[in-house]
This record gives sequence, C-alpha cells and structure tokens, in this order.
Amino acid sequence: MKKTSRFLETPIEPFVVERDQTAEDILVRMERISFQGRNLATANRVWQKMLADDVTIFLGVAGALSAGGLRLVIAHLIAERYVDCVVSTGANLYHDLHETRGRRHYVGSPHADDTALANERVDRVYDTFASEPEFIENDEWIAGFTTTLDPRPYTTREYLYELGGHLWRTTGREGILTAAYRAHVPIFCPAIADSSIGMGISQARQQSAEYGQIDVIGDIIESANLIIRRPGTASVVLGGGTPKNFINQASVQAEFFSPGVGGHRYALQIVTDVPHFGGASGASLEEAQSWGKLAADAARVTVTADATIALPLLASALTSPAPASLASRRRPTFTLASRVMTIDGKSVSSERIEAVHEPAV
Amino acid sequence: MKKTSRFLETPIEPFVVERDQTAEDILVRMERISFQGRNLATANRVWQKMLADDVTIFLGVAGALSAGGLRLVIAHLIAERYVDCVVSTGANLYHDLHETRGRRHYVGSPHADDTALANERVDRVYDTFASEPEFIENDEWIAGFTTTLDPRPYTTREYLYELGGHLWRTTGREGILTAAYRAHVPIFCPAIADSSIGMGISQARQQSAEYGQIDVIGDIIESANLIIRRPGTASVVLGGGTPKNFINQASVQAEFFSPGVGGHRYALQIVTDVPHFGGASGASLEEAQSWGKLAADAARVTVTADATIALPLLASALTSPAPASLASRRRPTFTLASRVMTIDGKSVSSERIEAVHEPAV
Amino acid sequence: MKKTSRFLETPIEPFVVERDQTAEDILVRMERISFQGRNLATANRVWQKMLADDVTIFLGVAGALSAGGLRLVIAHLIAERYVDCVVSTGANLYHDLHETRGRRHYVGSPHADDTALANERVDRVYDTFASEPEFIENDEWIAGFTTTLDPRPYTTREYLYELGGHLWRTTGREGILTAAYRAHVPIFCPAIADSSIGMGISQARQQSAEYGQIDVIGDIIESANLIIRRPGTASVVLGGGTPKNFINQASVQAEFFSPGVGGHRYALQIVTDVPHFGGASGASLEEAQSWGKLAADAARVTVTADATIALPLLASALTSPAPASLASRRRPTFTLASRVMTIDGKSVSSERIEAVHEPAV
Amino acid sequence: MKKTSRFLETPIEPFVVERDQTAEDILVRMERISFQGRNLATANRVWQKMLADDVTIFLGVAGALSAGGLRLVIAHLIAERYVDCVVSTGANLYHDLHETRGRRHYVGSPHADDTALANERVDRVYDTFASEPEFIENDEWIAGFTTTLDPRPYTTREYLYELGGHLWRTTGREGILTAAYRAHVPIFCPAIADSSIGMGISQARQQSAEYGQIDVIGDIIESANLIIRRPGTASVVLGGGTPKNFINQASVQAEFFSPGVGGHRYALQIVTDVPHFGGASGASLEEAQSWGKLAADAARVTVTADATIALPLLASALTSPAPASLASRRRPTFTLASRVMTIDGKSVSSERIEAVHEPAV
Repeated sequence: MKKTSRFLETPIEPFVVERDQTAEDILVRMERISFQGRNLATANRVWQKMLADDVTIFLGVAGALSAGGLRLVIAHLIAERYVDCVVSTGANLYHDLHETRGRRHYVGSPHADDTALANERVDRVYDTFASEPEFIENDEWIAGFTTTLDPRPYTTREYLYELGGHLWRTTGREGILTAAYRAHVPIFCPAIADSSIGMGISQARQQSAEYGQIDVIGDIIESANLIIRRPGTASVVLGGGTPKNFINQASVQAEFFSPGVGGHRYALQIVTDVPHFGGASGASLEEAQSWGKLAADAARVTVTADATIALPLLASALTSPAPASLASRRRPTFTLASRVMTIDGKSVSSERIEAVHEPAV
Repeated sequence: MKKTSRFLETPIEPFVVERDQTAEDILVRMERISFQGRNLATANRVWQKMLADDVTIFLGVAGALSAGGLRLVIAHLIAERYVDCVVSTGANLYHDLHETRGRRHYVGSPHADDTALANERVDRVYDTFASEPEFIENDEWIAGFTTTLDPRPYTTREYLYELGGHLWRTTGREGILTAAYRAHVPIFCPAIADSSIGMGISQARQQSAEYGQIDVIGDIIESANLIIRRPGTASVVLGGGTPKNFINQASVQAEFFSPGVGGHRYALQIVTDVPHFGGASGASLEEAQSWGKLAADAARVTVTADATIALPLLASALTSPAPASLASRRRPTFTLASRVMTIDGKSVSSERIEAVHEPAV
Repeated sequence: MKKTSRFLETPIEPFVVERDQTAEDILVRMERISFQGRNLATANRVWQKMLADDVTIFLGVAGALSAGGLRLVIAHLIAERYVDCVVSTGANLYHDLHETRGRRHYVGSPHADDTALANERVDRVYDTFASEPEFIENDEWIAGFTTTLDPRPYTTREYLYELGGHLWRTTGREGILTAAYRAHVPIFCPAIADSSIGMGISQARQQSAEYGQIDVIGDIIESANLIIRRPGTASVVLGGGTPKNFINQASVQAEFFSPGVGGHRYALQIVTDVPHFGGASGASLEEAQSWGKLAADAARVTVTADATIALPLLASALTSPAPASLASRRRPTFTLASRVMTIDGKSVSSERIEAVHEPAV
Repeated sequence: MKKTSRFLETPIEPFVVERDQTAEDILVRMERISFQGRNLATANRVWQKMLADDVTIFLGVAGALSAGGLRLVIAHLIAERYVDCVVSTGANLYHDLHETRGRRHYVGSPHADDTALANERVDRVYDTFASEPEFIENDEWIAGFTTTLDPRPYTTREYLYELGGHLWRTTGREGILTAAYRAHVPIFCPAIADSSIGMGISQARQQSAEYGQIDVIGDIIESANLIIRRPGTASVVLGGGTPKNFINQASVQAEFFSPGVGGHRYALQIVTDVPHFGGASGASLEEAQSWGKLAADAARVTVTADATIALPLLASALTSPAPASLASRRRPTFTLASRVMTIDGKSVSSERIEAVHEPAV
C-alpha cells in the first residue's frame, strides 16, 4: 500500500528523555523533531558552520535582553569570539552599563501596580524592575564621560569603544561593553538617539553644545566598508529591530558599491515577531533573499522563540563542540581606538565608501 | 540617592554560560533571569511541587506534538508517573498510534509545494510530512478494532484504554497509548469526533450501525467524579485547546457538586496563544481563578513558548531531581478495564455525579 | 532605468480617507493595500464568490465570539443564509443560549482582581464578565430540557436543532441557536463534551442514566454524507479550533468514500493563530491543500486578525452587494427535525457513509 | 438567584449588522462588544478626547505602512492636524518619498519565489513588491539633495523639513513628507541611520566628507524642549519600534528637567507585538506608567491589530465627528525652516534642555 515518495525520506525521531543530558545532547536530539524545536537545533548547526567558515559574524541584539539577564551570555559570545561585530539597541547597552556599574535589575511581576511602582520610582520592564534614581545617575555618568571626549564627531562604533574602555578601567567588571572593549570587537548602535545612552549623551550638551556629536551616518559608511574590506559575512539576529535591518543594509550597500561582495552566507534569527504584518522585525529570511541581503544558497534558519529560552540553551550547547572551531577560526582582527578603525590591518573609512571594484551601472 | 524599595529585593542574576551544563543546571540558572526564560524555570519548580504534594496531576495535550516528535516525551511522563491522567486531542493519539504501529512521520519543509505533495498523497503538518495511504490504512485498522468491542457505549476513557491494550499486544512498542495502558493511566479525548481517531471509529459503522458508540457525556461525569473521589488536583497544559478546558471544567463541576473540592492547587501551561483575543487556549491562569478553576493561592505559571522547545528541556530537567519525589509520590492508583473505572479502589461513575457532600444552594 | 518585471504589474493604491464611507467602500479601497488589510478586503471578494456559486457554505465558529458580542452577527449570517451549515464550539452556543434566555454578559476589564471576582461569583473572559449563578441556572435549564427528549442517541446536529426550537418557543428571541432553528440551518458541535452545553447535558443523567446520549460519531458520518449528497463546498472559519478541523475532515472523508467530491472550492479563515507552531488552528490554507481539504485551484484567503474587529467590518460590507446574490443563490434546503436529516430532499445518514461512487482502492 | 455585583453593570450589546453603515456607525456599535473590537472603538473615543483637549499630539509610525498603502492616511492625519508632531522610522519616509516621486509599490505575494525576484531585481516586503533599480535611483536622488544643504549638522527634524520642501517643490504631490512640510508639522526620525534615507545621505559623502552631518542627539534635546515649551501631550503609536520609545523618552526627559510637565495625558497604540517577551514595541501602557511616560490618570488604550486593518477604519471614523473638534482645536503652531524650530512662537533649542523650572534633586 505504501507509496514511496521523494518527500518521505528522513523520519522524525521522537525525542527521548534521559537523565543528565547536556544542552548539546538535547539540541542534537531535537534535530529530528519538528517546528521551532527543530529550528533551534538547526540554529546550533548553522552557527557551527559559521564558525568553521571564513566569515565575519555579525550579532544583532534587540529586545530587553540585558535587563532580562542575558548580558553575560552576549559578553561570553563576544569574549570567546563566537561573533565578530555587534549591532545593538541602545537599551541593551544601557542596561548592560547599569549592571557593569554595579547596579542591578530586579525580579518583578507583570501584575505589579504600576502606580505604586511610579510612586516608589521603580521602572518596570514586563516582569523586571529597576530603580529610576539609579537610572538617572547613569545618565549623568554618561554625560560626564561624554564631556571627556574630544569635541568632534564620533561614530557610535568609536564612541562605544571609548565608553567600554572607560567602563572597564573604572569597574573591572564583565559585561557587553567591557567584553567588546577587551576583545576588540566593534559595537554599532544605529538608533542610539532612541535610548537612554542617547539621553545621557544629550545631557553632556548642558555643559557645552560642542559635546555629544554622534555621526550615525558615518556608521552606515563604516559598516559597509567593513564588509567590502573583508567579504563573506554571517548574521545572527536576536529579536529583530534596528540591528537586524542595519546588518542587512550594510550588506546591501557593500554589494552595491563592490559587486560580488554578496549577501550573508549564513543567517540565523531568533525572533518573536511574525512576517505577516509586514514589519522588518518579523521579516522572513526568504524575503531577505529578494533584496540580496542574503545569498541565494545561504544556510539559514528562523527560530520563533523568546531569546530568554532559546539563547541560554543554544549558547550552552555551543560550548561543547565549539572550542575546537573557535581555536581554528580565521576571525577578523580589529583596531578600534580612533576615528578610523581597521580590519585585518586595512583601514575602514567612515567618510567614503571605498569600493574594491566600481559599482555596476 | 538610591531609595530602597520593597519592589527591589531579588536581583536578576545574569545567566552564565559554562560547558557541559545539564538541562537541570540550565533551568536552575534561568530562575533569576526574566520573561519566558524565567517562566520556564518556574515551571520546573512548580512541577516539582506537584510531585511532592498529594495531588492528582492532569496533563492536557494539544497541538501537533505527536507528529512533531514529542510522543515519547509524553509517554515518559506517563510511564514514570509525572502525571496521573491525560486529556488529549484526537490528533495526538492518532499520530501516536501511527508511529506505534511502525509508520513514521517525516522531516519536511513549510515551503514545500502543496500541490506536488497532494499529487504524491503526502500530507503536511507545517514542516512535517506523512503518507496519506498509511493514514487511510490506520483508519481502517481503527475501524477494525472498533468492531471487536461490545456494541455498547464506551466513554473515550474506556475506549482508549482498550485501544492502548490492543496496540500494546499487537506491537509491543512504546507510545502514549501503550504507556498509558501499561501504567494504568486514564486518557480522555473529549473532542474525539474531531479527529482521525473519530473518523476511524465512524468507519466501523460501515459494518453495523451498532458499532462506535462513544459516550462523551459519560466522560464529563467520570472526570468530575474522579476529582470528587480524590480531591486535590494539578494541571499541566501543553498547547491549550479542548484538553485545557476539559481539565478545568472537571474541576468546576466537581466543586459544584461537592463544594470544597476546590480548584487546581497547581497549574502550569505551555502555550503559544495569547489572552487578548479572548479565546480559551490563550486564557491566563489568573482568569481561571475567577471561575474557581484554580485555587486562589495556587502555584501557577504560564510559559509562552512552543512546546517543541520548552518540553524537551523541561522534561529532561525533571529527570534529575525528580526520581526521589517520584519514588515517594502518593499517586493515585486506577483500574480502567471496564465501563466503571476506579481510583484508589473507589468506583468512578460515568452515569451520575456522586457528590460526597451535597452542593450548596 | 526602470526595468519592467512581470512581478511589477498591479500598483498598490494608497488608501484615501473620505467622510461617511461605508464598510463596503472601505473594504473596496483596501483591496489594493497590503498585509492583513488586503487580506480582509480579499475575504470580502471570496465570500461574494461563494454566494454567487453553487456551493454549500460551512461556517466554523471558535473563540469567545458569543460572549464577546458577535452572536447577532452570526445569527444574521445564518438567517440571511450567507452560510448553510454551522460548526461551533460548545461555548459559543452556550453563551448564545445565555443571552437568548435574557441574561447578559458584561463589559469588564482584563486588569480586574480575579480573587475579588471569584468572591462575587463573577466569571471573567478576558475583558468580559458574567454571573456564575446565572451560568449554573443555565446548566440546570439545559439538563431539564435534555430530560424532555427521547432516551436515545442524538447527534449534536439533531440535539441542537431541538434545543434551538425549544429556545425559540420559550423566548422568541434572536440568537445563533434560534436563527439556525428558524432558517433550518444545521449546527454541529463535535466537541460538545468540552463545554457547558455538555456539562448541562451531563446533569440530565442525575435524573436517569438513559438521558444525554450524544452520538458524536454520528456527526462525523452525517457531515461527510452532507457533502457527498451535495458536492461543492466552501469554508468560512472564524478562530480555528475544532470547527476548522471538523469542516475539513468532513471534506476529506467525503472524498475518500466518494472520489471526485473534492476539497472545498473556497476557503476563508479569520484567525489569530500562526502556522509555525504546527497546530491546526493556525494551519495555512496551503497546507490544507496537501491533505485535499481544499481544491488545488480554490479561491482562498487567511486574515490574521481578531474576529471582533474583522467580522463586524466584513459582515457589514457584505450587506451592500450581497442581497442580490443572496436572492439568486442556489442554496441547499434542509429538514432537521429527526434522527435523519435531509438536504435538498435527500436523506443524510448518520449510520453509514453512503458513497455515490465506490472509493478507489 | 442572581446576585447583583458591582462588576456586572454595563451589559455587552451584541453588534447588529445593518446595510450601509459608515465607519463611524460601525465603531460606535463596537464600543460595547469585547476584546480588540472594543479596544478599537475605544481608540476612536480616546483620539476624539485628544482633539477636544489642549494637547500636543505625537504620532509614531513604524512597520511598513507606507509601502503597505497607508501613506495617504498618515498624510491626511497630518494635513488635517489630527496630529501635531510625527516620529517615524526611516523606511516609512523612504517609501513615502518613493511614491511621491512617482514610483510605485506593487501588489505581490508572500509565496513568491525570492530567487526569481532577486534575479529580476525586485524587492519584497511580505506581499508587496518594488523595483530595486528605482530604489537605487532614490538613494542617489537623496544623496544629490543632501549635497545642496549647508555643510553643517542638521537634526533629522530640520533635514526632513527641507527634504519635504524639496519634494513638494519638485513633485507637487501628496505624501507624508510633503504634507508635513505644508502643514508645518515636524517629523523626527531617530533611527535614520537604520534606513535607506540614511543610506542615501551617506552617499552624499562620496562628494565630500562634510555632507550628511545628522545631529540625532540634537533631536533628543529638541523633542524634550518641545514638551517643556508646551506641556500637555498625547501619544498615538502605530506599530511600536523606535518611534514609540522616542515619544516616551521625550516625555520622561522633559519631566526630569521640568518637573510637573508630566507624562502623556492620552495614549493610544495599535500594535501587533505582545508584552510578555519584554520588548519595547509590545510593552503595555500600564508599564509606561511606572516610568512616568504616561500620567497615572491618562485615558489609554492598546489595540492589538494590524494597522492595515485598524487604521483605515479608525481614520475613516474620525472624519465624521472630528471636523468640528478640528476647527476648534487649540493646536500648536510651528516654524521649522531653520536649525532652531519654534512652537507657538517660542524657540526650541537642540543644544540645551531649557527647563522652565529647575529639576528636583
């Protein structure tokens, strides 16, 4: 009776529960189940492929991951060079700075009385609380730091490197900004004006209008040149938002000025948004291929899941097989301590897109 | 500057990645992060509390979990008695039967050409494929089995016990139905008419109209009496749907006829639906309290996640600390091999709700 | 510069706001926008095509639509014969009965204190409240009615017709059940055991165990025969759930026993669930084609929206062009007042699937 | 039997379908139903209250609304002054510019072959297509325009005003940018670096590194001063994203420097994101109150719906009662044609937050 079909080749292998399985064991067993479980297991494989290949791995970070307890996972991914370049929302950097400075976020409840919280000057992020006076003091600290910089335009990449350095020197604590500083990993924050980092910077102008010049247009140019200087990229996106699009537009612009640089060769996204409302956060990786953001043959996977579940499992699993690949990775080397960064010894302009080849007309 | 607030007591502890962490390690570290990660960690604790207490644990199973590779996780939960009574959609039992009978589901793609699949008689469940001719043969097998039963009404609980027994005797394979048969765990399927199990039963009537009498109203009565006979319940719900509501209505009806039996003392749900469209699948556990489905002081947690990610991790974590609690559990004992089941030696009628106390007027 | 592409043919026409536009005007203007707005406009066209064609239109009703204020929209669709056969969850029929009996649901809040609600015996459905004592009295009323029926098995279709008739005779009020009774439109409720209708029926057995025999397996057979007797169907699904699958399984089973009867020729669903978790409620209409639930060339559209927004707009829009199509519709005629229903004068068995042609082997 | 409860006061009024109802009629009838339908009806009332009060109404625009056919709805809201100040993603302004320049977006399909689209240089936004060569030509046009500006920093507000003016003078066509130019309504774009507008600006630097200086920190200061200069604000948010947060941070920063300025007095959001993953796009308006983004007694409503359904209905409904309120509105008056904008004749600095009162310490 059974008709053999080309569609019926690889059976589902039901997940079998055993004692003391590690994260790696669990994800390997999830490769042959279905739905988002399979996708998360595939994400593990795709990330391993990125590490084994000669690509620059971008990490996009959106959603309240730092406040939500994942900042040291991201710091770990940076420090161990599971990723090479970070694009983040301002909020994730701000909440990271908050904890690196020794303050805390707190376990709260989504059912809390927000009027009572407001009266006690406690700010809520879903089920997580923080002290508003401490936030205000952060803003002032950022303003103060900003006034120590030269009164000239800084890309967010340069600004955040300096901020990470100052944080590391004054606190000596682990975090996203300090890990990136120490590992010489660039961080871009294209929407810095829409965050408390930006608010802190803006307060530096209370001292003088010449402070707080942030050159976000320079970031666009620099990120495109980064890809032109070292073609071959991969994208790991947590949560969509501006980082997801910024990583993709860098790829598109690099390709326009330097045809053949191509879209990402690998793409992995862990998102909660869905495609069918048309927004960029939920956009599928297939759609990205129509734009050339992603190569036609790119290994890719979308995991529809909250990163607070998916990332601890995935990052833990990566530690088991990854160190070997990490040791042998041909990863890019950066210098970040000036207006002009370098990648593998080549300068990366923020003033002009420097095509290796001239663009096709 | 910092004002101490009663809201700022328990700091978030950022998740730290280490090598070779087990599922249990990972969930313990997730207890102090935020959002759905914290909720999943809390689910682990709540389930452990259920096991340590003297309650009858209901498991509701909806969504395509059997086709999606989780049937042996559910079988494990039954066999090891992490749960005492199962309420399932028909599809999950049907896809379980399919694999227990030696057929398979297959790894597929959500981007497959459905017209091509239809031409090859392959049925798709998102990213999972199955053979339609094999499904048709299942239906006939179910019809054949059904004609071996006495021509009288069966509750789904009795019918499924007999089906599980027949499956076990003819295949000797692990699965949900066979595990429940062997562990004497009752399974209810209130929406059996909306499934291929029901379709198979309906085809038994091609032999004679007296076959396939399923007494779903008896299930309602039996499930309420089950709670009246052994007050103190907990609810573990995967995916919402009819099982979620059926477990709750049993509690409500038991309370009506036998006041003080009360709502569930523990409730844990892993769902992807949301509350704000008003449907029962996404309804919050707080809402359940207004109905008395859940005790006012019940330990409860909702995890918004795909069960194919959350359940492998959660069930794996439960194996580490649970065996001790499992060994000492005061779990109910059932006999299921007739029209009248028993719990802890007491008969459970499907004909009349037998209140211990008379209902309040 | 512009390269003409076959993909760039029909421009988006931006929606233009004008005063005093009707629902029909608005939906027509939405046909050339994007995303779910376009889908809702397409749903309007697809439904009009159903009305103009010679098909039996099934309506599936899930989610708390009756409690949520849409029961008279559904009653209108039945009374005016925009649909021919209804498949509903029990809850929607129960909440309909509640209001038809003169009780009300109430405007509430999702932020209400559920413990306070429980103390006042108020039940909450997201932002909507109801009186628990009134619900209990409904259950008793249903039990009482059930004991007036012959002590023999009833399909839900027959039972609900009798219930609608009794409701109409005792209240004279509009509603889903009474509209279906008066318009001779059958209602199936495959998951009746998972609802307060089922709970009420179960309480009839407190009088005698011979009451409350519901033959849900008969419903499966009857619904398949309905399609075999009058091939050519369309599916309008609100909210997924058991009604969505029941309508589809009837089509699949009809096709199996009477090849060529085919899948639905039109399909329209308004759902909030998504496909990527694998559940049936969110399953795409493309997936349905792999199963043969839907014809390969079926006009189809999925609208991802809360029915409480989409349905008032869509049903209002349908009133403008529809009366002409309604008047000329070749709609099926039913008799429902006995164990054996008829469609267009032909009997529809609930005891045996009566293939017009023998099934292919 | 019925116990009167304070919770059971306002009955649900089922929606009644009638012919030729206008958008306004429909929304009024939806005020007494449930779930998101009621929320959309409430949004209509809340917006009317904003118009009747003496507040500055901010509009946040995220998601692919311009590409998706809503740009003329937004232009209408600006031109008729249903809103006073716009905060937008770059993409919505870019796609608006694209159509104002006479190019089109096209009706497409989410099931299109993205490799084929890439080969034909067609870019996909879910179910909507556009020509990549036309997009490239837009970028060059933006670059060209940018080189006509003085080589000095521009806030996005000043830059977009100049861009709107240039667009209006060269095309004479309706759109978001041109409507804002003509109505003297400021537009902020805090994440301009994460968009094709930003990419176009960056290409101006191919001419000279002194072009394309965008002062996003100035936007932060200017938006706070805007609120300090004219206290009393309302927030209408479509789709979350950076605009939602930017509108809120302006309010928080204004309050910090000028205590008593307060949070928004009205807030209305139409979003598809949910709160429980912790991201800002889905954050509840209750949570906003903990931060002081929203006044404790603010009239507020969240509508969980795709804006392509909700906004055409809502904007159409507003036209019926609104003209009277529009005529009598005490709306702010702006001048925008220089580095320093004015509101109601008062200058609004982008260099220093100018508190009316000194901040509390």
